[in-house]
This record gives sequence, structure tokens and C-alpha cells, in this order.
Amino acid sequence: MQYGYFDDENKEYVITRPDTPTSWSNYLGSTEYGAIITNNAGGYGFYKSGAQGRFMRLRFNAVPMDQPGRYFYLRDRASGDYWSASWQPVGKPLSEYRSTCRHGTAYSVITSEYSGITSEATYFVPLGQLFEYWKLKVTNTGTAPRSLSAFSYCEFTNQWNTSQDQVNLQYSLFIVKGEKAADNLLRYSIHDNLYIQHPEWAEGGGFMHEWVALVGAPMTGYDTAREAFIGTYGSYKEPQAVINGKCTNSNAYGDNSCGSVETEIELQPGETKELMVMVGIGDANAVGKKVLAEYGSIARADEELAKLKKQWHSELGSFKAETPDEDINHTANMWGLYNNLITFAWSRAASLVYNGERDGLGYRDSVQDVLGVCAAIPEETEARLVRMLSGQVACGGAIPVIRIDHDPGHEKSPKPEEFRSDDCEWFFNAVPNYVAETGNLDFYNKIVPYADSGEATVYGHLKQALLFNLEREGADGLPAGLQADWNDCLNTGYHGESIMVTFQLRLGLTTFCRYF
Amino acid sequence: MQYGYFDDENKEYVITRPDTPTSWSNYLGSTEYGAIITNNAGGYGFYKSGAQGRFMRLRFNAVPMDQPGRYFYLRDRASGDYWSASWQPVGKPLSEYRSTCRHGTAYSVITSEYSGITSEATYFVPLGQLFEYWKLKVTNTGTAPRSLSAFSYCEFTNQWNTSQDQVNLQYSLFIVKGEKAADNLLRYSIHDNLYIQHPEWAEGGGFMHEWVALVGAPMTGYDTAREAFIGTYGSYKEPQAVINGKCTNSNAYGDNSCGSVETEIELQPGETKELMVMVGIGDANAVGKKVLAEYGSIARADEELAKLKKQWHSELGSFKAETPDEDINHTANMWGLYNNLITFAWSRAASLVYNGERDGLGYRDSVQDVLGVCAAIPEETEARLVRMLSGQVACGGAIPVIRIDHDPGHEKSPKPEEFRSDDCEWFFNAVPNYVAETGNLDFYNKIVPYADSGEATVYGHLKQALLFNLEREGADGLPAGLQADWNDCLNTGYHGESIMVTFQLRLGLTTFCRYF
Repeated sequence: MQYGYFDDENKEYVITRPDTPTSWSNYLGSTEYGAIITNNAGGYGFYKSGAQGRFMRLRFNAVPMDQPGRYFYLRDRASGDYWSASWQPVGKPLSEYRSTCRHGTAYSVITSEYSGITSEATYFVPLGQLFEYWKLKVTNTGTAPRSLSAFSYCEFTNQWNTSQDQVNLQYSLFIVKGEKAADNLLRYSIHDNLYIQHPEWAEGGGFMHEWVALVGAPMTGYDTAREAFIGTYGSYKEPQAVINGKCTNSNAYGDNSCGSVETEIELQPGETKELMVMVGIGDANAVGKKVLAEYGSIARADEELAKLKKQWHSELGSFKAETPDEDINHTANMWGLYNNLITFAWSRAASLVYNGERDGLGYRDSVQDVLGVCAAIPEETEARLVRMLSGQVACGGAIPVIRIDHDPGHEKSPKPEEFRSDDCEWFFNAVPNYVAETGNLDFYNKIVPYADSGEATVYGHLKQALLFNLEREGADGLPAGLQADWNDCLNTGYHGESIMVTFQLRLGLTTFCRYF
Repeated sequence: MQYGYFDDENKEYVITRPDTPTSWSNYLGSTEYGAIITNNAGGYGFYKSGAQGRFMRLRFNAVPMDQPGRYFYLRDRASGDYWSASWQPVGKPLSEYRSTCRHGTAYSVITSEYSGITSEATYFVPLGQLFEYWKLKVTNTGTAPRSLSAFSYCEFTNQWNTSQDQVNLQYSLFIVKGEKAADNLLRYSIHDNLYIQHPEWAEGGGFMHEWVALVGAPMTGYDTAREAFIGTYGSYKEPQAVINGKCTNSNAYGDNSCGSVETEIELQPGETKELMVMVGIGDANAVGKKVLAEYGSIARADEELAKLKKQWHSELGSFKAETPDEDINHTANMWGLYNNLITFAWSRAASLVYNGERDGLGYRDSVQDVLGVCAAIPEETEARLVRMLSGQVACGGAIPVIRIDHDPGHEKSPKPEEFRSDDCEWFFNAVPNYVAETGNLDFYNKIVPYADSGEATVYGHLKQALLFNLEREGADGLPAGLQADWNDCLNTGYHGESIMVTFQLRLGLTTFCRYF
């Protein structure tokens, strides 16, 4: 079955039919403001940490799959018929409805064609910003004038701690407030006194607040309370407000919140209109209004999109291969590196399968992740290597997860039974690769602290990694598997041995013989 | 708005319209096999612990609300029209569809009327058993013969640890197996090697296995894989198998699983037919077949329902008040006590708001919970009081959650900063009440171990509770609030004081003066 193709020139993957066997996701934003979006506009958002900064909600492994997300609903005011600007969540029959999705470099464009109306929704986070643009272009391709209503929808979490948001309902269902802050601006605040994992985040005024704005069209209605928009027994497929053709202007107060703004669009035959929704974190009054004043125009959004593309395309230009196999070229020149860069940035903080309840960098993952990006971002690579080396403890083992607030020199060492056997051996893949790519041989002499106490050169760190496994032999003299080798399901402790780590150790020893 | 009424004679609450503003839940089963069901057949199930034994899945705070559950879908084979035997999940317009729900004493009966067909679904867990009956009676009230298909649906968890089931998708989506075990029997097994909190549960053969059986009608099809039944972009409202009129006979293997059996029902005008689905835990071959042989008939189910009602009605007969206020009578004579008995059994393990991720008895909750049930179940009350007293540590404070595998005399004491100030003061409500109700004055002399070490009479335990708070004064000589007083959001530590606990302490001291 063919669902799409690579568009090399635009560096996009084009999904030509929306009913893919599973959701196809793309990444927007940065390590500061992360967002995931699928070919059906499902997805979520987080500030710094998928675990502690989750502000926009998706339900994992739910039915229907991968909902909610960043939706536009369109409604014909004459007939009452409505659809969404992505195939889901309304899901009109594909005999009458067409949709494509272009997943680009940190932006996605979803188009729809239905009943003589086409739409184009463009989603991205501008470089260095803590908000996202949802730009919508609507065209009347028919021969008669059309009167439409458009509604946005996303769902905010009740607590930014994603685990608490899911389970602590006796608390989290009573701490949200949503209200209108200006003619075109909605304000959301969470009054959470219990689970503030990163109080330092509050300083910028961004934490536990969101805002939604409508640009380029008057806001004729809004809903900040989920149930008011969806209806008591409603669904994303059939939201009550869209059925009624009218938001209820609800102010959430101890409910679930949602971000819905409503406007009306009159279209002559052939006419196109543009409008834009902006969603960001921070207090609507303190932050949202400022952002709106500077970024709140479609012209500015277009500029920002151009800047974003330029930046990404330049990073992705660090390597170019031409082989007789088109698919190898796609991977080597664009999609492999693109995905490596995202994985480097987010570690396993977020995907559609990994829920992102981990608040930091998984050790072995993150050491491996530098391999694919050395050439594209050498400086960030070195900084990450230093950070991971500073997560090694003096005995040579490592802390399994390097937290966001990692404090080298002052961390507690894992207990003997908590060590993984493979963690630090991955440096023998990562460090020589970084040095070979950059020529920075001096990196081996750089002094880096251990996580618990003391310090050593990078060379000393690597030596300690070898000693760690040499000193932890199992019954036959091979490295013990400890709490896990690469395989998290294998806990062989201090007796059972790991062939995997044996080969890693051999690579490490060989590397040492060759270089030093 | 009127949604229902009390049926005193049958000890049932009758919900006469299904579109209640929020779900209305009832409790089935016991502390061993717990089940929750709503007026729209939403709900879930757990073995012993809502946290570690969750085998049937509900999604909390989702859209649409309180799905999935224990569904019957009915489909007219001539027209292709289909509905559910509860209003949701299909949700036919209430102008054409009627439904009532009778929430009784550990059973619920949901009826439907639609397009000349009535149905009556009766759900309950027989006394002392680890399975549930879903009995379905279908009647043709029209003048022409009808050919229907019926489908069951429930969703099993991928891991019985409910937190893991929700978040560990990179693992849990690959460990489930569903298959046909006999002509009328489906078998489910989970191959989870990582999160087995209670290995002792495996001994009975029940852990991490479920079975579904169809009784009273031939199984013409089945699905054990969720996506096969629901469809890739499908929903509980519009499952693909029901739309198609045919299950796919899917064997889940590393998917999400579901319990769907299909049968055909031919009905002459006025004719009624009965069939039954049974869902239980344990291996289908080792346990399911044995249960089926003994309990797998509608006649037996009817007997079991009669026994269940008799047992509950007798327990509920421990107290009878007649006041001029009907609503006080309902509460005092039936619903207050019924709910108290459930709360006593499950503590906060399960409800529609409390997700049940706690694996044990919350201290203050459970000490309070005995108050309402002393007269109805005095022996269980005494046993519970002893269990809670054995969760007090020798210094007089308590362990905040008494785990299922609580081991008096060998538990670690909470750290100073972990104590709640109110926990043990609740005994001054609970113990005198139990003694007054039963006349068992000797209870004060019963010797009960402390959680950590040593033992004392019940009198000694109570004295230690008073000393605990007397010895932990705040700045003004009142009891310090510690980690929390009754209010979990108030952490006043060892400096700030609690007026709440001051009054508790006063009650305790007064009680001591009066009795001793």
C-alpha cells in the first residue's frame, strides 16, 4: 500500500492519504518547547520535560487512537455540515474527503478538500520561542458564496506533571482556570500547590500557564471548558459546540480546560482567507500580550517559517551522499539526520509510543544519540558528551538517568545493584567518532567532574569505564550483566554475564590499544 | 432535573434516563474480584488491588467519558442498523432509544428499547467467585420476525499494574496473547516478566490471565485483538466489526486485547431469548473450563443472583430507621450503609474519580471507614481495627498506607518528616464506636503488635496515639501538623500547628477521661 512519497526538493515527506495504519508523527519546537503532531493533527506539547512540563494533552493507547491534538473544525453555516481541517477527528468518508500531510523540518502542513472548500493548516514553533503557530488558509473552490464557521481545539493538562495529570483526579479536576483575557486572547492558569518539581521554572512566568490567541479574524466565541465544547457525552468527532455552530463562551473553573476560539469566514467563489491561532505558555497578560504584539501577524508568521526552514535546511546540509539507491539517499541526506537531531534534543522525552514520563536523559540512549549528529552540531555534541561523562561516578559506572537538574560532583552514586553494565562502554563508540569528525584530539585531555566526587580527563573517564567492567566479572571471567545490559529485561546481577558487554569491553580495549 | 428514583422494595436505585450529567457507578464483586459499572455499562475490574491487579481497562477523564466497559452491541442483520444494550457507547438519539439502569446490591440491570427490540443486561459477580456474569435477555416486541447479531466487548489491560499499563507502551504493547481455547471460550495471557508486584498471586493460576465465555448460544465469531474489532480509526461508538456485522476471529499477539464474542439471535414476534457472557480471571484451560462446567448455565446464574441478593439484603438489614423524611430513610437504611460496606472493603482502591493506583489501605481513610459498618459486620470490623492498629509504629504515629502484604512487627517506621498528624487520632472515633455497638469492652485489652517492633494492648495503642501528638507540639503548644493533617495539601511540618488535630486530640483526651 502506498501512503506517500519523499519530496526531496522541499525536504518534506508527503502523506497522500490520511488513513495510515498507524499515526505518523513529526516534531515541532526545541528542547525548551516541544511539540508532537501527527498526520491527523493529533499530538501534545511540553515545556523542557515530557514528564514535568506537559501542558498539552494527548491520550496514549486510547480509542480512537492518538487524540486529541491541534484541531480546526470547519462548519458550513447554511447546511450545518462540519468537518475537520485534518481527516481526523471528524473523519468524513474518504470517498468525499481528501487530505494530505507534509511533514517538513520542524513544521507540518495538512491540507483538506471537502464540499468545495480547501484548507491548508500550517503548524510550527518559531525558533527560540515558547509558542506555536497554527496558520489556516481556507479557499472556496466552488461557484457559490459560502458562509463558514471555524473553531480551534486543543486540550490542556490539569497538571504539568503528566503522571499526576492522569491519576490525581481528586485534585487535578479542581485547580484549572480558563477565561477571556482580551478580545482575541484566552488565559489559562493552574493553581497547583502540590507537584512543582521545578520551582525554578516559575521564575520566567511561564510555568503552569497557557494562552490561546486568534489573529487575522475576529473572535466571535470561545470555550475554555472542555465539557462545554465537547458536550457531556460528546466526542472529538462530534463536539457539541460545532454541532450547535456556536461556542458557549465558557470559563473553566475547576474543570478540564480546552482551547477553542471561534470565528466566521465569508468566502466568495475562488476567494481565499487566512487566519491564525497561536498557542503558548506563560501568563496571557504578562507573556501572551507581549508575544502577540511582536509576533501576532500572518506576515510575521511567514517570516518565522522561512527562518525556521533555513536554519534546519542548513543543519541538514552537513552531509550529502549520492548512491544509486534513492531510499538510502533519503535517509542519509535528510531523514536519518533529522530524526537523530530530534532524538539528540529530546532523548526519550517524547514520542507516540514512549509517553515521556522520564524527567531527564537516559544514559545509554543519550551517549548513543551523539553518534548521528557529530558532523551537524559538533559544539552541542561536545557539550552533551561532557554532560554524560559528568554522569559517570568515580568507580566507573553511571547514573541511569541524568536529571534536568543534574549537579556534577554532588550526586549520589547508584547502589551496587542499580548499575547497568553497558552504560559507559558506549563512550567507545561516541567519543572517538566525535574526535574523528572534528579533529579535536585535545578533547581527551579535557577535565570533567565525576557525578559523585572527584574529576578526571576524558581519557581518565574512559579508562575508568573499562576498569568498571573488568572489576565486575561473572562466574566465567566475562563482564557481569548487573541490573541490565543493553537489554532492560535481562537482570543477571553480579553472577550472570553479558556477551553484549563483553563485546563492548573488547571494543573499548581495542580502541585504547589503537589510540594511546 | 429528575434522573431516577429509589425503589425501596427491591433495594435498587432506578436511573430512568441514561444521559446523566456524569456517570453513575455501582460496585460488583468483593475484595478479591472488584468491578465497577456505570449506568452506561462503563467500568473496569481488578483482582485484590486496583493498582497491581487491574485486568479490565477503563480510561479515566477521557473523551467520551468513562469508556470502555462491559458492552453488548446488537445489530439488525436485515438493515445493518446497530445499537448497544446500554445507551453508550453507540448513543442512539434519545428520541428513539430508551434505557433504564437499576443499580442494586452488587448487581446492575440495564434495559434498552429500540426499534422494536428490548434488552435486559444483568451484571454481577457471584459470591466468592473470580468471574462475572453478563446475562442478556432480548425480546422482539414487534410484529415481524427479526434476525439480530449480538457482540460482547470489554478491554483487557496489557499489564495488571495499572501505571505500567498506561505508560510502559514500548513493553506492554508486545506481551499479550489472545486466542480461542474452545468452541465457546477465549483465552488471554500476559507474558510480563518485569512488573510482578505480588508473585504469590501467581500460585492460584489466576494472575495475568483472563477468559471470556459465551453460554446459551453458539459463538459464531470472536475477536481478541482490539484493533481488529474496533478498526484502525474506529471507536467504541462505531466499531468496525459491528458495522461489518462480523467479527474477524482475531488472535491478539502483541496487540491490545479485547473480549468480543459474537452470536446470532433469531426472534419471532413476542419471542424472548437469553444468552450469557462470562468473564473471569485465571487460565482459560485450567480455570475457565472448570468454572464453566460448574457455573456455565443461565439457571445457575439465576441461583447465584438470588444468593447474592439474599446475602446483601441481610447485611443491609442490620439497621432500620423510620423518619418523616424519605431521603433520610433511604440513606440510613440502605444507601449509606451499602456505600460504607463497599468503602470498607475497597478503601480508596477504586472509584470513577480515584484511579486506584494505591496498593493498600490508606490509614486515616480506613480507620474512619469502620464507623459506618460496625453494626452490619462486627467481626470484619474488629479484624480491620486490629490490622490498622498493627500499622501504628511504637512511637505512636502510623504508616500512611498499609500495604496488602503488610507485615506487623517487621515494617520500617516512617521518617520523622513522613508522619501525618491525624492518622491515629481517628481511633478515638472508631474504637469506642465499635465497642459501644458490640459491647466488646474486652477489646481494649487485646494485645496487638506495632508495625515496627513491640506490642501493646489496644488501650496502650490509643495512649501512644495521644502521646505522639502531645510530644510533637508546634510553636504555640498545639499539635504540629507534620506532613499533613486531614488535609493532604497542608504540610506544616514540625513548626506549624493544626487546629483540626487539636480538636482530635481533645476528643481523644476526653474519651480517655470518660472511659478509664
